[in-house]
Amino acid sequence: MTRRPRSEQIPLHDEVQTEAERLKSTERRTFLKKGLFATGSVMVGGALSGLSPKALAGDKGAPPDIPAWTRSLGPGVVDRPYGKPSASESGVIRRNVPWLTADDISSVSFSPLQDLQGIITPNGLVFERYHAGRATVDPEQHRLMIHGLVDRPLIFTMEDLMRFPSVSRVQFMECAANGGMEWRGAQLNSLQFTHGMLSCCEWTGVPLSALLDEAGVQGDGAWVLAEGADGAAMTRSIPLDKARDDVLVVFAQNGERLRPEQGYPLRLIVPGWEANMNIKWLRRLKIGSKPWFTREETSKYTDLMPSGLAREFTWVMPVKSVITFPCPEKPLVKPGRYEIEGLAWTGRGKVKRVDVSVDGGMSWQPARLKGLVLSKALTRFSFDWRWDGQPALLQSRVIDETGDVQPTLAQLRKVRGTNSIYHNNSIQTWQVKADGSVNNVQLG
Amino acid sequence: MTRRPRSEQIPLHDEVQTEAERLKSTERRTFLKKGLFATGSVMVGGALSGLSPKALAGDKGAPPDIPAWTRSLGPGVVDRPYGKPSASESGVIRRNVPWLTADDISSVSFSPLQDLQGIITPNGLVFERYHAGRATVDPEQHRLMIHGLVDRPLIFTMEDLMRFPSVSRVQFMECAANGGMEWRGAQLNSLQFTHGMLSCCEWTGVPLSALLDEAGVQGDGAWVLAEGADGAAMTRSIPLDKARDDVLVVFAQNGERLRPEQGYPLRLIVPGWEANMNIKWLRRLKIGSKPWFTREETSKYTDLMPSGLAREFTWVMPVKSVITFPCPEKPLVKPGRYEIEGLAWTGRGKVKRVDVSVDGGMSWQPARLKGLVLSKALTRFSFDWRWDGQPALLQSRVIDETGDVQPTLAQLRKVRGTNSIYHNNSIQTWQVKADGSVNNVQLG
Repeated sequence: MTRRPRSEQIPLHDEVQTEAERLKSTERRTFLKKGLFATGSVMVGGALSGLSPKALAGDKGAPPDIPAWTRSLGPGVVDRPYGKPSASESGVIRRNVPWLTADDISSVSFSPLQDLQGIITPNGLVFERYHAGRATVDPEQHRLMIHGLVDRPLIFTMEDLMRFPSVSRVQFMECAANGGMEWRGAQLNSLQFTHGMLSCCEWTGVPLSALLDEAGVQGDGAWVLAEGADGAAMTRSIPLDKARDDVLVVFAQNGERLRPEQGYPLRLIVPGWEANMNIKWLRRLKIGSKPWFTREETSKYTDLMPSGLAREFTWVMPVKSVITFPCPEKPLVKPGRYEIEGLAWTGRGKVKRVDVSVDGGMSWQPARLKGLVLSKALTRFSFDWRWDGQPALLQSRVIDETGDVQPTLAQLRKVRGTNSIYHNNSIQTWQVKADGSVNNVQLG
Repeated sequence: MTRRPRSEQIPLHDEVQTEAERLKSTERRTFLKKGLFATGSVMVGGALSGLSPKALAGDKGAPPDIPAWTRSLGPGVVDRPYGKPSASESGVIRRNVPWLTADDISSVSFSPLQDLQGIITPNGLVFERYHAGRATVDPEQHRLMIHGLVDRPLIFTMEDLMRFPSVSRVQFMECAANGGMEWRGAQLNSLQFTHGMLSCCEWTGVPLSALLDEAGVQGDGAWVLAEGADGAAMTRSIPLDKARDDVLVVFAQNGERLRPEQGYPLRLIVPGWEANMNIKWLRRLKIGSKPWFTREETSKYTDLMPSGLAREFTWVMPVKSVITFPCPEKPLVKPGRYEIEGLAWTGRGKVKRVDVSVDGGMSWQPARLKGLVLSKALTRFSFDWRWDGQPALLQSRVIDETGDVQPTLAQLRKVRGTNSIYHNNSIQTWQVKADGSVNNVQLG
């Protein structure tokens, strides 16, 4: 762009121009005199910390050169009323595993945990799970009905619902099948695919208890059937105690209205319970005295035990953690100092403590919990590590506030066998090779 | 779409079909018998709460009818690797005020606070402020230099920086000029335009103190000059005490890498201080013994007092709040029960208390703080109100943990006069008229 603002000169005022000039003349000479450029590299951050210097000779965008983007003007504020990521981040996307399901409308896409920071999952990268594709619902036409064992059957418009007092809570959501491909062996050499059916948002909605009070649940009411408006009419039974405890009827995520793939305009959030129960495109809540034993809580979302019997209604997502750096997608570059990072969570409340092992679980050291530690939310942990260039086996293990401890896969198999798909909360092992590459392995 | 998943039947299994059939026959008749449809409306949520019923007769998407989107399949998981909002939310966008600046490359876009929930601003809606347009920076070429009064001048690549231990914090950011158009009178009948230079994200980056320690600040070092790589070479002086306290060199917002409009790939976050100091596209930090008195801290971002002298270095964003519902963009529909909602924040730490007035400040009642109350972050408050249909004057007033109280505009003008542009933290008044419309007014 060559145009100039009409209102003012391009504010490369004297002080900055002097500064820039000085950089190009005096300081460059000074740097050269000090020999910083002499070998084609400069002293960089890490000279003390163990991080490695980076060759800079010939780099056009580096100080003390003035890069091209400082010598030009960019597009203005009317360019993008709704923003999007840098084109340089085009690899940070949800991905699916084509062979995992017969059709992509009854399938899943995984969040790129290897690229994420903090505990909030940006809305564009929250994992997807469809049973009949992404429903496109007209919010003007959408209704929520509450009926069954209630004194007053009710039908709400979105406008009705959004007039109720709302609450906002940061909660994780994990598909019960997250890691399901790993029960029988390490199949997927990827953090995104082993753990990416996991996201965490600030959800805003109306406590379900407030709506139930409006309808007046009758004495023999003990269960709530929640139904979605998608082509699958996804349907789950939720015990009334949980419904009254902390379940939300949600219309917003991370500040804005729900994304279509998250159930726009309305969904349930059932904190800490398997994501499948967090019914999207919510259109109906029926109160009954018994569970309905729908398809999604009988033939699916049950755990087939070695005896041939299946455990049903295993709603709570158990205590779990995973190291997100390094991982197969983010190998180590060379020996030196690193911050091992990871995520921990539990459907039972808060994370209490995370330990890290670099020797496959023979010894453990406490990790640091970073940032916010919230109930039924992702918690980020870190562990300072100096990698000596030798092979290593990285693991994390979390303990929650109820005392539950993340098990090994061997411990889990001893009880559950190998027929399960759901609720694999076992300790993940990342094998670091001498070349810095990282592999998904399972220990004997 | 008419195709069916190959792996399974569309799971409108017997139970649900029966349910749907029953709804269409038995229950519909029951509803009609009870007279719920008799007047063309049903008993809806609010029958008890004071919210109003909604006409439903003839609605195609409402239970007990099965809407079109439940009778069809949607697109699958490979459709959108990076998601976007519903087309029905196309009005939820950043907006600019064309007459405010001579050119849109040195201008601002405002966040649509009237449409936001919770405390997190989604990345696509974080307000923009450019001085030379949105720079497009190649992260591979980008460098951060630390020089001046340091033992070791350093140049960092993005890779170098991201290997340092990072922290994640939820912090608000407000342009010092937010509300600047209101000093002389109520000019803009819009929450978005009076308060929308305000956003709040979970930011992830490296504490600046860690980088300063790498460089080794010399004894007479007392200030840091931060420079951006945009065409404005935006440059501000920051006292070393603040730089060492809580300033972050940030590469991610709400989990993903910075958006281009927020300084991709690197920016400063200077918690609680005016947004202009949170230098975007950060390329240079110089340590000096005195401030630099750059254009942006002399001719701009100073407060011209009635005496003709200007206050400079007024960095901290003062305690402030605003009611976000109702507001000019979100009027009241009819008399009844409402949740008044708003946001409060302070550059000095945590919000302690918010009061709400419905009579223009003659009487005050305490509001409820909702969700997380974090230091130097937005805090959401609410207040249950039954509107009687009479004109009202809505105000909110916040007190922070240091005891600072949000002033009236009259109090502010008494000290500051009417020459100021920046740091208008006065109490906002929304006038509710009998027809439910809401206007921006200033009381005498």
